[in-house]
Amino acid sequence: MLIPEPVQSLIDAFSRLPGVGPKTASRLTFYLLRGDETLSVELANALAGLKENTGYCQQCWNITTADRTLCEICSHPQRDPAQICVVEEPLDVLALERTGGFQGHYHVLHGALSPIEGVGPEDLKIAELVARLKVGAVKEIIIATNPSMEGDATAMYLQQQLANRGVRVTRLARGLPVGGDLEYADQNTLLRALAGRQEMDQE
Amino acid sequence: MLIPEPVQSLIDAFSRLPGVGPKTASRLTFYLLRGDETLSVELANALAGLKENTGYCQQCWNITTADRTLCEICSHPQRDPAQICVVEEPLDVLALERTGGFQGHYHVLHGALSPIEGVGPEDLKIAELVARLKVGAVKEIIIATNPSMEGDATAMYLQQQLANRGVRVTRLARGLPVGGDLEYADQNTLLRALAGRQEMDQE
Repeated sequence: MLIPEPVQSLIDAFSRLPGVGPKTASRLTFYLLRGDETLSVELANALAGLKENTGYCQQCWNITTADRTLCEICSHPQRDPAQICVVEEPLDVLALERTGGFQGHYHVLHGALSPIEGVGPEDLKIAELVARLKVGAVKEIIIATNPSMEGDATAMYLQQQLANRGVRVTRLARGLPVGGDLEYADQNTLLRALAGRQEMDQE
Repeated sequence: MLIPEPVQSLIDAFSRLPGVGPKTASRLTFYLLRGDETLSVELANALAGLKENTGYCQQCWNITTADRTLCEICSHPQRDPAQICVVEEPLDVLALERTGGFQGHYHVLHGALSPIEGVGPEDLKIAELVARLKVGAVKEIIIATNPSMEGDATAMYLQQQLANRGVRVTRLARGLPVGGDLEYADQNTLLRALAGRQEMDQE
């Protein structure tokens, strides 16, 4: 073995991360080898504590610290429990929170329906979402799944599951991205933008 | 805090790696959160063991396991101690070994001269290289520093230090793309550079 085993095993572990190939894994490993020990130790500790110290909010299934039953958003007195925004992943909550445009609660599905990858409704937090309708005074469900094949399929399925329950079901608008260029928009985006055109005085 | 502290601290640690920005750090962290625990644990263990279980060869200063005084190349009976190939980093040894075109020993400087970054000769393993000439029957020193400003400066400095010591000083042929990084060179380019090495006074 030309590469010492402790070095090779870190290269192998890094290589299993998404978007990290063997070359990048080597570079990261040798960077850590060359640098002082603090960064390796901090990374190791953060990794060891990651699963141990985190858990899921028992209402919206977003990630929270292990000592909490409800996350900060669900337990915040100023957030409106009548609106629930449904997203695929915890990172989507962060993206929406950064906009500052939503003051309701969330629901994290932890994925999207995908027959090809064998992800069915029972693999997602869909039953948990339906159960929330029975408890609280929910007025609106905003579906914010990704604008992809899987996200669309998930939105359609949710729409069926949530129909006739006395709750308004909406979905994030589709159209041209702000700051984008019309000539670079793909056909589907343009078609959606045309179909979903709005009266200008309504904006 | 919207992001739980254990999650944020891993994002922060990843962000300190070279070439990993905050977005990539978040993606890696949430990937680990979603996946099973084995990968996080393996990464944590590999990181914890990295410095503890590795050390430097006391002859060539390449990385080796902590229990060895000499690395596998230096202690290999079939390798020729009369030729020493001088490189900047341990990754460069791997790149040269992959070519299969060199059967001598190595010497890892652990950097290159750089007045801007404050790296002087005393920061590199140059004294250790000169000391090797006194001990063994070294006939040739092949300088394989990067074809960059710093690599060139280091090569020039080494040439001066090694002159008039009864040892042939050569350098990898300038077939390497200028401004490139040795570890990224393809095998054929490296083989040609090895075969076409030139006396330094011819340059």
